[in-house]
Amino acid sequence: MKQYKNMFSAETIANYLQGVVEGDPSTSVTGVARIEQGKPGALCFFANPKYEKYVYTTKASIILLNKDYKLKEKIAPTIIRVDNAYEGIASVLGLFESAKAANKKGCEYPSKISWRSKRGKNCYIGAFAYIAKGVKLGDNVKIYPHVYVGDNVTIGDNTIVYSGAKIYQGCVIGANCIIHSGAVIGADGFGFAPQANGEYKKIPQIGNVVIEDNIEIGACTTIDRSTIGSTIIHSGVKLDNLIQIAHNVEIGKNTVIAAQSGIAGSAKLGESCVLAGQAGVIGHLTVGDRVTIASKSGISNNIPDDRQMLGFPAMEASKYKRSFAVFRNLPDLWNNVNTLVKKVAVLEKNQDNKSDE
Amino acid sequence: MKQYKNMFSAETIANYLQGVVEGDPSTSVTGVARIEQGKPGALCFFANPKYEKYVYTTKASIILLNKDYKLKEKIAPTIIRVDNAYEGIASVLGLFESAKAANKKGCEYPSKISWRSKRGKNCYIGAFAYIAKGVKLGDNVKIYPHVYVGDNVTIGDNTIVYSGAKIYQGCVIGANCIIHSGAVIGADGFGFAPQANGEYKKIPQIGNVVIEDNIEIGACTTIDRSTIGSTIIHSGVKLDNLIQIAHNVEIGKNTVIAAQSGIAGSAKLGESCVLAGQAGVIGHLTVGDRVTIASKSGISNNIPDDRQMLGFPAMEASKYKRSFAVFRNLPDLWNNVNTLVKKVAVLEKNQDNKSDE
Amino acid sequence: MKQYKNMFSAETIANYLQGVVEGDPSTSVTGVARIEQGKPGALCFFANPKYEKYVYTTKASIILLNKDYKLKEKIAPTIIRVDNAYEGIASVLGLFESAKAANKKGCEYPSKISWRSKRGKNCYIGAFAYIAKGVKLGDNVKIYPHVYVGDNVTIGDNTIVYSGAKIYQGCVIGANCIIHSGAVIGADGFGFAPQANGEYKKIPQIGNVVIEDNIEIGACTTIDRSTIGSTIIHSGVKLDNLIQIAHNVEIGKNTVIAAQSGIAGSAKLGESCVLAGQAGVIGHLTVGDRVTIASKSGISNNIPDDRQMLGFPAMEASKYKRSFAVFRNLPDLWNNVNTLVKKVAVLEKNQDNKSDE
Repeated sequence: MKQYKNMFSAETIANYLQGVVEGDPSTSVTGVARIEQGKPGALCFFANPKYEKYVYTTKASIILLNKDYKLKEKIAPTIIRVDNAYEGIASVLGLFESAKAANKKGCEYPSKISWRSKRGKNCYIGAFAYIAKGVKLGDNVKIYPHVYVGDNVTIGDNTIVYSGAKIYQGCVIGANCIIHSGAVIGADGFGFAPQANGEYKKIPQIGNVVIEDNIEIGACTTIDRSTIGSTIIHSGVKLDNLIQIAHNVEIGKNTVIAAQSGIAGSAKLGESCVLAGQAGVIGHLTVGDRVTIASKSGISNNIPDDRQMLGFPAMEASKYKRSFAVFRNLPDLWNNVNTLVKKVAVLEKNQDNKSDE
Repeated sequence: MKQYKNMFSAETIANYLQGVVEGDPSTSVTGVARIEQGKPGALCFFANPKYEKYVYTTKASIILLNKDYKLKEKIAPTIIRVDNAYEGIASVLGLFESAKAANKKGCEYPSKISWRSKRGKNCYIGAFAYIAKGVKLGDNVKIYPHVYVGDNVTIGDNTIVYSGAKIYQGCVIGANCIIHSGAVIGADGFGFAPQANGEYKKIPQIGNVVIEDNIEIGACTTIDRSTIGSTIIHSGVKLDNLIQIAHNVEIGKNTVIAAQSGIAGSAKLGESCVLAGQAGVIGHLTVGDRVTIASKSGISNNIPDDRQMLGFPAMEASKYKRSFAVFRNLPDLWNNVNTLVKKVAVLEKNQDNKSDE
Repeated sequence: MKQYKNMFSAETIANYLQGVVEGDPSTSVTGVARIEQGKPGALCFFANPKYEKYVYTTKASIILLNKDYKLKEKIAPTIIRVDNAYEGIASVLGLFESAKAANKKGCEYPSKISWRSKRGKNCYIGAFAYIAKGVKLGDNVKIYPHVYVGDNVTIGDNTIVYSGAKIYQGCVIGANCIIHSGAVIGADGFGFAPQANGEYKKIPQIGNVVIEDNIEIGACTTIDRSTIGSTIIHSGVKLDNLIQIAHNVEIGKNTVIAAQSGIAGSAKLGESCVLAGQAGVIGHLTVGDRVTIASKSGISNNIPDDRQMLGFPAMEASKYKRSFAVFRNLPDLWNNVNTLVKKVAVLEKNQDNKSDE
């Protein structure tokens, strides 16, 4: 069970979830557990029918149940009835987490905070964090240890930057963002001009990265600064770990990208797209809104809205699957064709013979 | 040649390897070299027949030879005969390295070590390391500079965490592990609930990561914390660089994963699997024991024990290879079929004509 | 617009670019802007015909134009005529950037600099940087905050190491290199010897990494140290973000590798190769000079010079494309063959019947 200092009563939680208590509304919990691991002081939930038997044996103090679930016998825990227990648990976790995270504030020693930087109320700045000149931090910003915030970076209210994330000079981060450890925002785009002697000359990358609001950026994800202008991540985008976003890319709002995917330079993704893991988009392409790209697939052409893409080079998913179904049986196809070649040769010979007759 | 402060005699090394000295057992070396680059004071080995000529010219002071290798003429270096010179060299390197690494201990200034943390004997804590409250370090733990160890993390005996690795709160690391620079353990899993308005709401990730014993984790590899419960890496697992292990994943003992592979959320890998580079496993799948997955291949179904998988979507390797062999020749197949279509049309026409006669 | 402290006149810039001023040579600018966003004090350029209308409306103070471009009417900005405005802008950006970066020097407090390290003139060492014993830094080296430079590392003149990059002991970095945040140079190669009991025993990695001159290494790229000897990156190589270079690899000069590509252990790449994103090369292979490897493609055999490779397993690009064109139509091919099978069966039956007549 995950333990928190804060304790919440069934009544508080039910109010928060707009649910209904069955049993003692003063029953209180300090954490959340899986139904099969429930202990006194924990809240658990029941959503997956596979786990139904544990509803009747769990030792948790509170259980979240769907409103339409009919109990087969009386159970010990206090019950909170909600429309959707699975969604409810997420909210409860949020309740505990936000109560906890809200506690962290103040500046730990030693950190390096330029006197030419500004910050709002209730910020946390961890030890060994580096806040360069011209930086502006909003209210409630949390900068964990070993974070580097370069010259003139702006970070909006309530944003959390975890230990060791690096933000190069001039980048703009919005409000309510979460940036995980190891993420690198604003490193130089990969731009080089080939020279006659075979060497490459660096094209300076003097743009920046703009991260709007409500964005989460995973561990070791890299977002390069633009050559000129801005690499732009629009609000609500969620990026998993180890993702590469190249220079001059623009990603539409509420698009979600899974781990190890890469978006090459100057590509433009629409809104509400979903990219599965290890996907890729080639440079300078435009991908429409609500496009889904399957894992390991690679987009090599512009894609209109609402398409589902699969494979590399990516095709519409349904077409790719049909082609791949044949691919699985290619040896049979090959043999069938060889058999036909022989049969047709016999047929031709026989016909010729007949003609000769 | 790699130079060490420590010096070892042929006798010491032979004892360590359970080998036999031919020549002066007091000959001593301070390092290891390739056979073709051997210098006085170095130990070299001969395993690859391509390098045989150097056995007779190397200037190394000691040479490891297989017991069954017959010298064609007398050589200068002191010889240590072992069953397997290639395996022997690995052990010798370990001898030098462990002698060296064992020296590092004490706390460098400035580091940040919570008075509410505990640690065992002979630990090393580098400058700018951050040890949060509730942390427990075993004996001989080495924490290099810039490492972040979050609240309540436990690290077992003899584990080494290299510069800049980050371990989020509540994670558990076993004994005899090596965690390389840039690795991020325990960042939030990638879990979001889609909302009616197109936005995504974060599902708090309140579990942790459990790393058992004898595990190596490569540079910039990311292992996310579980939503509830633990993401588990069982003992003996070896992870290369830039690997993504998503939340709720479980990896069986002695499984080896090469660089840039990714395991999606809630997937479960068996024991003694081998994943080559850039491989992937889709979420919620179960992969059996001793499964091998070829590089760039992607598992999209549950896989029983002992299979060898290749391609994406992955098929059994032998079947994939047969299909791919035909793929290489698809243009010929296409032409053959077109030729057949024409020939059959002619045959049909001729037959019709005949029927008409 | 990107603002700099330094101000440059049209005359200075024209001299630098070997261009010609039309208008007031004393017109000065402090930054660069896109043509459509030009403001007083900015320099812009015109290269893409799509933007021609802005030539006549931009408010920039200076505009770079190609020598052969004919103005349709008089324009307000001072003009600098160059052979190639697009290449010219890169040089101007470099002028501004180098003027700016050259300013940074001195050691910030607190940093950890071993008294047993050496450094040349005009170095910058940021706060929380760690410079271990035996380190040698050339002139004008810039070490940003949170960088770790291990024992006995050498770094050549003018090299920049951005915040949080990690360089393990004994590695050698040349002159004029740029290493971005999160890069890890010299972590242990991934080498393990399987044991009879199913466990893997670490093979010590006691070599190093040698990075020659004029090399750029992207964010979170990992280059492992050699088992014995050196992993070698030859001069002029450009590596994007999140790339894996395994132990014992050698990369020929002026080779360019895009993000998320991986080179497995002991592979050898030639000179002037170009690898697109998410490409891979399997271990122990040799790839010739001037080979191009398409994105997501994987090399599984030795490749001679000058080949263009695509797919996985990679084939020559033109052949792969022809095969893939058929792959797209495999369901049709399958149907055609099935139709043929039936037709041939009918033909055979009819012929048999005829024979029987």
